[in-house]
Amino acid sequence: MGGRGGRTSALLDRVDLRERIGTELAAFLAARAAELAEISPELDPVARTIRDFVLDGGKRLRPAFGYWGWRGAGGTAASDAAVVRAVAALELVHACALVHDDVMDGSATRRGAASVHERFADLHRSQSFAGSPAGFGRAAAILLGDLTLVWADEMLASSGLPIEAVVRARPAYDAMRTEVMAGQYLDVLAQAQPSVSASRALRVARYKSAKYTVERPLHLGGLLHGCPVALLECYSAYGVPVGEAFQLRDDLLGVYGDPDVTGKPAGDDLREGKRTALIALTLQHGSPAETAVVERLLGDPLLDTAGVETLRDVIDASGGRRRVEALIVERLEQGVAALARGQVEPEAAAVLAELAEMSTARHA
Amino acid sequence: MGGRGGRTSALLDRVDLRERIGTELAAFLAARAAELAEISPELDPVARTIRDFVLDGGKRLRPAFGYWGWRGAGGTAASDAAVVRAVAALELVHACALVHDDVMDGSATRRGAASVHERFADLHRSQSFAGSPAGFGRAAAILLGDLTLVWADEMLASSGLPIEAVVRARPAYDAMRTEVMAGQYLDVLAQAQPSVSASRALRVARYKSAKYTVERPLHLGGLLHGCPVALLECYSAYGVPVGEAFQLRDDLLGVYGDPDVTGKPAGDDLREGKRTALIALTLQHGSPAETAVVERLLGDPLLDTAGVETLRDVIDASGGRRRVEALIVERLEQGVAALARGQVEPEAAAVLAELAEMSTARHA
Repeated sequence: MGGRGGRTSALLDRVDLRERIGTELAAFLAARAAELAEISPELDPVARTIRDFVLDGGKRLRPAFGYWGWRGAGGTAASDAAVVRAVAALELVHACALVHDDVMDGSATRRGAASVHERFADLHRSQSFAGSPAGFGRAAAILLGDLTLVWADEMLASSGLPIEAVVRARPAYDAMRTEVMAGQYLDVLAQAQPSVSASRALRVARYKSAKYTVERPLHLGGLLHGCPVALLECYSAYGVPVGEAFQLRDDLLGVYGDPDVTGKPAGDDLREGKRTALIALTLQHGSPAETAVVERLLGDPLLDTAGVETLRDVIDASGGRRRVEALIVERLEQGVAALARGQVEPEAAAVLAELAEMSTARHA
Repeated sequence: MGGRGGRTSALLDRVDLRERIGTELAAFLAARAAELAEISPELDPVARTIRDFVLDGGKRLRPAFGYWGWRGAGGTAASDAAVVRAVAALELVHACALVHDDVMDGSATRRGAASVHERFADLHRSQSFAGSPAGFGRAAAILLGDLTLVWADEMLASSGLPIEAVVRARPAYDAMRTEVMAGQYLDVLAQAQPSVSASRALRVARYKSAKYTVERPLHLGGLLHGCPVALLECYSAYGVPVGEAFQLRDDLLGVYGDPDVTGKPAGDDLREGKRTALIALTLQHGSPAETAVVERLLGDPLLDTAGVETLRDVIDASGGRRRVEALIVERLEQGVAALARGQVEPEAAAVLAELAEMSTARHA
């Protein structure tokens, strides 16, 4: 799923889209908060945490791809309010994915702040509740994720777009949701294997990131407008490699990224022992001494700064980092070339080319 | 959420509905399994576990209320195939609620078999995967629940009903999903409080059970057909008290139920320390000696058969059990009387009266 760094914001701010997506999300979530308040005032921490989590962060990358997928199919800015609402729903699917992902990984931080389950564990402690703070935090986070997942759906359905448009776009939306959950499961499965090949890591990345973050949002936007199959194919030919490049960049940021940019502590992926393509390539091409270091340190939850530095150096020296950079360039070029060959509206094509560059550029 | 026992099956089998719901679920899940298989053969345990979990158990109570809500509004059996598909989707929402509930409670069993997270912990052990079996099981169960939640939605949307019907019914569907998640959170919160009043326990029951299991499914069915507001009001006046009675029966079964019927070990709710209305009434009306026993034994995960017996006796002697039985009778009468006053089609009214009796009758 990925999604570290903030470089894309310049582009999105220029087109004013990021702010509009945030405004729509705020309005939608305010209505849901009112609904929860009617059930019980005790649901206030739920409503507040969802609002803070959704509104305080995120580059809005998936809605951006959704929006430009629509523009690329011929949608015009003059009548795009309902479309902005519809694609903003993708942020709520993503909120579920991130909140549940942090529970599954036991991650304490997200976007530079405490993860949702940690926030509720803190609430438990501050109120001196009975039982386990961690258990309470986990339960609350599971339910919050479920809520954002069903709200996503409600936001898409109530966007104000003609019913036929939403019905037309549903197959892309449905496939996206199944694919991201399936990709997440494959990722969990890969983390439980003693060794993971680069090709396997890339297949996981395809489902949990590339299709989910880029291809399917583009399809959703295209289908909301009503577009020919050829355009969907072009979006796939652009979206899958660009999305894989995005995940590969995310893998690098998980190891080398600046915590101020990633919102996660330095080396967090190394402590979690994530079996990314970067790690697979390091193990595949490293010397016996290098692979021994990786096997010894990777996944140590108590890895200190020196240990993180050692691992970084080994991944660098083995050529793993360089190979991943090369894969990113290759995929980026492939995607942008496919885009140029398709029948995408010119302004959208220009923005998509720029989005591809920015979402896969070095941030660290 | 509840849902123990099997007495309703006689009625549902008579009208053949339970089998038809199962057939529709099997067909829908087979198509989803094929979709997962295309992504990766490694997803086979996911598809298989969802199928087994959804098809091997459940009284199909929520689809039954949805179906009879539709019939009560004037729907005719001659043209109900798409409606059966639409209301069967409620079983998939319910699968998510149960699978996630078991993760939150750490319950090892469900419907007489291992809970989903336990099944995946077993898979982890049998394959000698790396890392924690419990963590793997939990992650897989969170993702499986997410999948069934999004599939519910897909099944409703693709039922074959006219789009306008589905759009018309969405508010009931959306409210139901928000309410059950909210009710679940309030339940988790109540379990974390040192003491819970009966009125609070009943409010939790209203959202996580009564509205979710009875009222909203009836609304969904009514709205799928297109019904006047007066009928929705009648469904509420019947559904909320009947649904509360259903949850109160479930609370009693959690303490006194036969494991063969409930599918859970005897006294499981006592070991989990569930703060139900039954427990609240026991603490409220019991003698100091009786409440001391409850405070000491309730929530002890290692409670043995003798301890379960002791607690059962105290809850009985305190008058807690009798009071809950009285509340059930009161609510049942209230609901059935409201039904008789409404404009529900006669055959549906008869079945709903019978469903109310059966879903709240003593099973143990």
